[in-house]
Amino acid sequence: MTHYPSSILKLIKNLSRLPGVGEKTAERLAMHILRASTKETEELSQSIKAVKEKIRLCSRCFALSDSDVCNICSDHNRSSAILCVVEQPADMVAIEKSGSYTGMYHILQGVLSPMDGIGPENIRIRELISKVAEGKVKEVVLATSTNVEGEATAAYISERLESYQIKITRIASGVPMGGDLKYVDMVTLKRAMEGRHAINPNIS
Amino acid sequence: MTHYPSSILKLIKNLSRLPGVGEKTAERLAMHILRASTKETEELSQSIKAVKEKIRLCSRCFALSDSDVCNICSDHNRSSAILCVVEQPADMVAIEKSGSYTGMYHILQGVLSPMDGIGPENIRIRELISKVAEGKVKEVVLATSTNVEGEATAAYISERLESYQIKITRIASGVPMGGDLKYVDMVTLKRAMEGRHAINPNIS
Repeated sequence: MTHYPSSILKLIKNLSRLPGVGEKTAERLAMHILRASTKETEELSQSIKAVKEKIRLCSRCFALSDSDVCNICSDHNRSSAILCVVEQPADMVAIEKSGSYTGMYHILQGVLSPMDGIGPENIRIRELISKVAEGKVKEVVLATSTNVEGEATAAYISERLESYQIKITRIASGVPMGGDLKYVDMVTLKRAMEGRHAINPNIS
Repeated sequence: MTHYPSSILKLIKNLSRLPGVGEKTAERLAMHILRASTKETEELSQSIKAVKEKIRLCSRCFALSDSDVCNICSDHNRSSAILCVVEQPADMVAIEKSGSYTGMYHILQGVLSPMDGIGPENIRIRELISKVAEGKVKEVVLATSTNVEGEATAAYISERLESYQIKITRIASGVPMGGDLKYVDMVTLKRAMEGRHAINPNIS
């Protein structure tokens, strides 16, 4: 690898810091960048700088935003009576893509993880409580992940919100759509069975 | 994807132009860049710009270089009597890494490919001929790839160099080291058999 000129070596080193990019991939990306048009690489270089300069957290929901209040928080067509709690901005984007939700969000910017020393004070739980305390929210949807940390975080938040007279819901767990039952793990199947619902609601 | 602020969308778009990077990977890389330190992203952005500004082709061998003549061409400890012809700068780096060669290189910057409209005039064959015509080169090692285009290019070059009184060699083809015979393709096995050599050269 030391047989490249130093500026290429530096680029390879910097590229290989990206997640999922090893030395070989970094070398391939560097060769692509060398061959690409100056316009293309100028845009790439510029956009990397730009996100760091422009992007901040929305002061209401802590989503990624290029203004003080994000597009969703400033959208008056969305219901502010319902608040969906997620771990990361990418989770919010995934729910938005599903088109199944028209309320507001609260991005925790993390998840409770005692093993990594992340407690309630390290993620945006205090801000969530004060938002609920304002009295406008009627329902909080806990949409943290369904792994150990996500479940623990959901349980902790629901406990902290108990004293407020609001509905607290958790997203459904079950067999993913298109999933083959025999490949689904036991815990998921147990959840799917427990969460079964009538498809002919007239007969009880 | 449209639920991100515009500067993030632009970064995702630019990243997804890189080879092997789809929209999902680009999104993940963008999230990493957002979380990374300003120093790290500044370095990445800067090094992308730097390679485009600094790197040129060596005027002797057409390797990537940050000066007019590359390190290898200006290294007087290397033999200029032997010239290794490769397709791409990365091929040269691979040979250098193997530590098996101490001569000079000639990088064709491509390979003959009539299907893609690439003929002898589109790659650095003319420059190779004039280098050989100078009379200092005693051996040309054809180290183009062993695929159809690489073989054709090697054949074409060896024909063009026929009139010069020099040795023309081709890198050996055969079973790769660590290779399992039963997984090796027929053409490679045929080459390995044809290229067999005595391990006890005393007995003929």
